[in-house]
Amino acid sequence: MTMGLMQDGPLLISTLIEHASRFHKDAEIVSRTCEGPVHRCTYGDISRRAKQVANALAELGVRPGDRVATLAWNGYRHMELYYGVSGSGAVLHTINPRLFPEQIEYIANHAEDQFLFFDLTFVPLIEKLAPLMKTVKGFVLMTDRSHMPECAIPGLLCYEELVGRQSSEYEWPVFDENTASSLCYTSGTTGNPKGVLYSHRSSVLHSFSACSADVLGLGAKDSALLIVPMFHVNAWGMPYAGAMCGARLVMPGPALDGKSVYELMRDEKVTLALGVPTVWLMLFQHVDANRLVPRDDLCVERVVIGGSAAPRAMCEKFETQFGAFVVHAWGMTEMSPLGTVCNLLPKHKDYSLDQRLNLQVKQGRAIYGVDMKITDDEGNRLPHDGKAFGHLMVRGPWVTKGYLKGEGGEILDAEGFFDTGDVATIDPDGYMQITDRAKDVIKSGGEWISSIDLENAAVGHPAVAEAAVIGVAHAKWQERPLLIVVRKSGQELTREEMLGFLDGKVARWWLPEDVVFVDDLPHTATGKLQKMKLRELFRDYRFPEN
Amino acid sequence: MTMGLMQDGPLLISTLIEHASRFHKDAEIVSRTCEGPVHRCTYGDISRRAKQVANALAELGVRPGDRVATLAWNGYRHMELYYGVSGSGAVLHTINPRLFPEQIEYIANHAEDQFLFFDLTFVPLIEKLAPLMKTVKGFVLMTDRSHMPECAIPGLLCYEELVGRQSSEYEWPVFDENTASSLCYTSGTTGNPKGVLYSHRSSVLHSFSACSADVLGLGAKDSALLIVPMFHVNAWGMPYAGAMCGARLVMPGPALDGKSVYELMRDEKVTLALGVPTVWLMLFQHVDANRLVPRDDLCVERVVIGGSAAPRAMCEKFETQFGAFVVHAWGMTEMSPLGTVCNLLPKHKDYSLDQRLNLQVKQGRAIYGVDMKITDDEGNRLPHDGKAFGHLMVRGPWVTKGYLKGEGGEILDAEGFFDTGDVATIDPDGYMQITDRAKDVIKSGGEWISSIDLENAAVGHPAVAEAAVIGVAHAKWQERPLLIVVRKSGQELTREEMLGFLDGKVARWWLPEDVVFVDDLPHTATGKLQKMKLRELFRDYRFPEN
Repeated sequence: MTMGLMQDGPLLISTLIEHASRFHKDAEIVSRTCEGPVHRCTYGDISRRAKQVANALAELGVRPGDRVATLAWNGYRHMELYYGVSGSGAVLHTINPRLFPEQIEYIANHAEDQFLFFDLTFVPLIEKLAPLMKTVKGFVLMTDRSHMPECAIPGLLCYEELVGRQSSEYEWPVFDENTASSLCYTSGTTGNPKGVLYSHRSSVLHSFSACSADVLGLGAKDSALLIVPMFHVNAWGMPYAGAMCGARLVMPGPALDGKSVYELMRDEKVTLALGVPTVWLMLFQHVDANRLVPRDDLCVERVVIGGSAAPRAMCEKFETQFGAFVVHAWGMTEMSPLGTVCNLLPKHKDYSLDQRLNLQVKQGRAIYGVDMKITDDEGNRLPHDGKAFGHLMVRGPWVTKGYLKGEGGEILDAEGFFDTGDVATIDPDGYMQITDRAKDVIKSGGEWISSIDLENAAVGHPAVAEAAVIGVAHAKWQERPLLIVVRKSGQELTREEMLGFLDGKVARWWLPEDVVFVDDLPHTATGKLQKMKLRELFRDYRFPEN
Repeated sequence: MTMGLMQDGPLLISTLIEHASRFHKDAEIVSRTCEGPVHRCTYGDISRRAKQVANALAELGVRPGDRVATLAWNGYRHMELYYGVSGSGAVLHTINPRLFPEQIEYIANHAEDQFLFFDLTFVPLIEKLAPLMKTVKGFVLMTDRSHMPECAIPGLLCYEELVGRQSSEYEWPVFDENTASSLCYTSGTTGNPKGVLYSHRSSVLHSFSACSADVLGLGAKDSALLIVPMFHVNAWGMPYAGAMCGARLVMPGPALDGKSVYELMRDEKVTLALGVPTVWLMLFQHVDANRLVPRDDLCVERVVIGGSAAPRAMCEKFETQFGAFVVHAWGMTEMSPLGTVCNLLPKHKDYSLDQRLNLQVKQGRAIYGVDMKITDDEGNRLPHDGKAFGHLMVRGPWVTKGYLKGEGGEILDAEGFFDTGDVATIDPDGYMQITDRAKDVIKSGGEWISSIDLENAAVGHPAVAEAAVIGVAHAKWQERPLLIVVRKSGQELTREEMLGFLDGKVARWWLPEDVVFVDDLPHTATGKLQKMKLRELFRDYRFPEN
């Protein structure tokens, strides 16, 4: 083969902040801090301070490849660490503080973190965990001297003192773009969390995608509110993508309640907001309780929803009350995370709101960089007809090829695809829709029933707060669906009313065999429904007719 | 260093068309053909036929790295070759038919082209050139049997016969992403054309950029008219970027006259159109001559103008008469070509049209992937203050590191930057503006005067059709500007009127020392003003007062 004659510079995370410091240096990073006030700085400042961080790490003896952990909310200091740690060749390990303390202990030890940078909020947690983190040589509190608390963390360092005294002269090292840049652990529902080790290359390629018009369309025109945490798959890559295009970033710090989020959207003229459904529900509650008129107060244009499926009613409320288009997206920690994005095609232009919402609840079209197939249990490809549903498999330069330290063994199939654990359809236009988790799908008489479709139909009833569907053994059909419902407080709802409501909304043979009412459903630390726990709880349940 | 654990798949051009065939398969490619009718096909069809092309190349004995040339307009067969040739590991050499025949002969021999695919238009040209193309083993006419002419090209093959009989089963080979994919020769104003050899990696990274919201924002929502030819830096990368995002592509074939372009824009509901100023002038003439109302007839939203500077009046006319925003872009063959794009920032939202046009005539902001500096004659960096102007130097993964066969020698500076030959300013927001070509800048009394700024000011006069400024030796000031003007036909304009018009529009000391009127100005085959020729013509010119 003949090699091309194009330049060889590697795709490094440091090139993102270097670019921003040269061509978007005055674009702002706005942070609500743990200490209280709103802090404003620019990409120019982040660049300068990231170099100070790099010099501080050198002083601490951090070497290339060492893991440096954070336990922090979204804010400018966290962003300085994103660039300072990865840019200098070390690996940024963003720990999710919502994990159980024993999980945090496990992953800090598993990752062999050398230093831990953390926010004021987590002082009590680290007091407890510090002695258990065997590889951590030092703890750095991300605040200034005046906010340093009395506490029981030995040798605790103050971020502003450590970083502030460093020179801002620093030449970013140049190395192989496949070098590890950052580390996130997946919070699976079973077993220990597993580490996904991103590279500089994967992070930069993923940023290109996030800036694409048909993906998140991030640009310098945006004031982007990152509700999605920087400890959750790198805030969906936004701190990187923001520097690539010079988007203004707005960071909420620890204040994710409806009132704080609403005010930040209003005061910072947010045009694009990104987060999981849970935070938007809190926002809606605030809006409803205070009879606010978002359309008048806010200028938000797009709301990116991922992490779990965007409910239809949520898309509708953003559209009608906020004047904002919901960009439904799907991905995974193992995918950096972007995989599909639900944007519209020209053919949808004349759709009614109702038709459009039917489309928007789909997880969207595969983006370039994420090849995708659906397969049956034997691994055969299924057609993209919008009907066949099968195991969703993905492949591409920002998809993991294996977990840290080989946990979970070989995870790719013969063609190099990673099994997402989801079951999905893909339609002829490329729109993918998750129909279930593979382990939650109900196999009834040789056919598959989607637990998620049933749940979505059930939560459409005004008296239903939350619903879950699990498969329960059945003498004749192997498995049949059991619907488990949490009623809204003060609302009445009977089994017969529930089933009557579903009749006609789902295929006849999908109708749950029974409905039971409970006070609450079990969730993981990150808010996901724990179907496994639910199956345990209902292990002894038998259908009435059995 | 620790390597990341992300997947290793290379960035290959074949992955673009594979992606399109899976997720955008019904999006259309519309082509006006050389044969006459408008042809419609889809990315699915292009994918299938590109595989047939790959099989045809194998049958012809084309090996990886071999150059396969095209001499063709924008159309679906050319696009099939883009994917079939590069995807199979050969190198697509797109020859510019507007070059002089002897230049075409030179570059076909220099590139050692093995096969030449060409459009009907070029039969007479190839009849003459075929015997001179020493390495070409076969000529393929891009048409069907019924359009094959009687001609003097020995062993001429028919595209539809050659390709149509092939299987569409073909597995794209996987190889190093730095492999050469395509070749364009620069048509410099001096010396022989030099070859720029793109790689698969550079082409895919460049496509990511083209799809970025702040670059060209290409998306599946677009019906994109590629007036810019596929022999001109790969039509600014659009055939690749289109497949990445599923944009509908509209190809004008050989018909670039105002009427044809207008009708294509209207009939194909074009939202985005890309081309050089010359074609837009032809379009304007058609609109004016026929008193058309583009705003009523068309739905074009963005017009990308590159190749040479977009005049202010052109931006204004597109805005006011077409309702279209002009996206002024700058790049070079050596840059794949995208370098800067003039999109607006939030701070410009309340600008008047006048203020905005003042901004839009700038070449725009450096995009991520193109690092940029301006330097003085000694190579020292100059500030980004919007005032200092210096040599514009670029660096990045889609910038060339050297010409084919080492022509021109070492072309990068110590930091790896390529000298664009342009002189420019960069303002604090990152907007770059070309002030001149380095060799055209007028050095007067130790200061630089921009010939382009003077020309732009001069063409603002209603009686001026075209203007050029060159430096002429001056006893006291080393050089002083001479303004050379072509008057519009039937218009009167004196030296004094011209100078009076300029007074107050440019710095006093920039005012041309003299004005001369000519009937026409010399241009290159690709329509660029030949300043070198002009300097030759005026070699014996002396200023009046000398």
